[in-house]
Amino acid sequence: MKIIIVGATGTIGKHVTTALQKDHEIIKAGSKSGDLQVDISSPVSIENFFKQAGKFDALISASGDAHFGPLHALTDTDFRKGVDSKFMGQVNLVLIGQHYINPKGSFTLTSGSLAIDPIAYGSAVTAINAAIDGFVRSAAFELENGVRINSVAPDVVEDSPAYFPYFPGHIPVKMDKVTQGYVKSVLGNQTGQNYLIIE
Amino acid sequence: MKIIIVGATGTIGKHVTTALQKDHEIIKAGSKSGDLQVDISSPVSIENFFKQAGKFDALISASGDAHFGPLHALTDTDFRKGVDSKFMGQVNLVLIGQHYINPKGSFTLTSGSLAIDPIAYGSAVTAINAAIDGFVRSAAFELENGVRINSVAPDVVEDSPAYFPYFPGHIPVKMDKVTQGYVKSVLGNQTGQNYLIIE
Repeated sequence: MKIIIVGATGTIGKHVTTALQKDHEIIKAGSKSGDLQVDISSPVSIENFFKQAGKFDALISASGDAHFGPLHALTDTDFRKGVDSKFMGQVNLVLIGQHYINPKGSFTLTSGSLAIDPIAYGSAVTAINAAIDGFVRSAAFELENGVRINSVAPDVVEDSPAYFPYFPGHIPVKMDKVTQGYVKSVLGNQTGQNYLIIE
Repeated sequence: MKIIIVGATGTIGKHVTTALQKDHEIIKAGSKSGDLQVDISSPVSIENFFKQAGKFDALISASGDAHFGPLHALTDTDFRKGVDSKFMGQVNLVLIGQHYINPKGSFTLTSGSLAIDPIAYGSAVTAINAAIDGFVRSAAFELENGVRINSVAPDVVEDSPAYFPYFPGHIPVKMDKVTQGYVKSVLGNQTGQNYLIIE
């Protein structure tokens, strides 16, 4: 299977890459690193990226930024960092990628458990994660040629200790467990699912 | 109670206005009509609006557009109509309005049942409604001075027959029932709730 991993060198992406590269052809994509570069905040960059990558069987996105900060100081500009990157960036990987993916292929996006389990400073992130999960639930019924789509919604992960203070009482998820969410989405047969990954 | 209703002359807003104006001071706001005008897609317009409206006790938003259309033809530009209007427009009413609202006030936003019950052509709308509901769940814990926030998530409403063909099997919701969702949010004491309004 030819699998594109966007964010392949990131905290989650590198583990997913390791797990899948034994048995599959992996195209590593990143904003600066990897086999091919793509700026997911730009539809033009995404279109050029798919033209270079060619037909594929699965796309995994473990990419996109969003703003953490207290609600009382949150601005439209702060909020739109995540809207343009993690939300619309991943949506556009699907809107554009649907015209390049092989029949029976799959898209796997990354949201996060904050969608349903908010923390302080996380209002923009919760909204954006919920938007991604919603998009996945609806797009699953509209994708053609048997193409599937799921999202993986991890809690804070063990390889991101800088975030631990913002997630009091959350048990950091083991990277192996997070990785299996992506494996399940790509190699399984489900669609329209939001895989919540918590310890 | 001084209540701002954004979209006061719209399909839902006019019923909510009728229900609340007997016992409360209502400021009707709209893009073109009402006591005060506001373009919710513009943070500058929203800021000017609140300066004119002054301190208030409750804000109801029954406003915002989004794009319906088949996924295979959906573009970033289509999708962003709803992102800029219904999603970020309503979010910005809260981000900016939190600095003008009285203690123990409330915000009530409008999402829609498509957030959890998708239809064909509705992927952008589902994502946007889910984003609004997510924002409400998280912002509720961060708003200060006892300010509350909820969303009302109606199914297709009886006063919008043009939409009925896109909602097969959905039973259009009576306007009185939808209206009570807003009344419950403003006059009740709950926060962080997504009120699903279905028949």
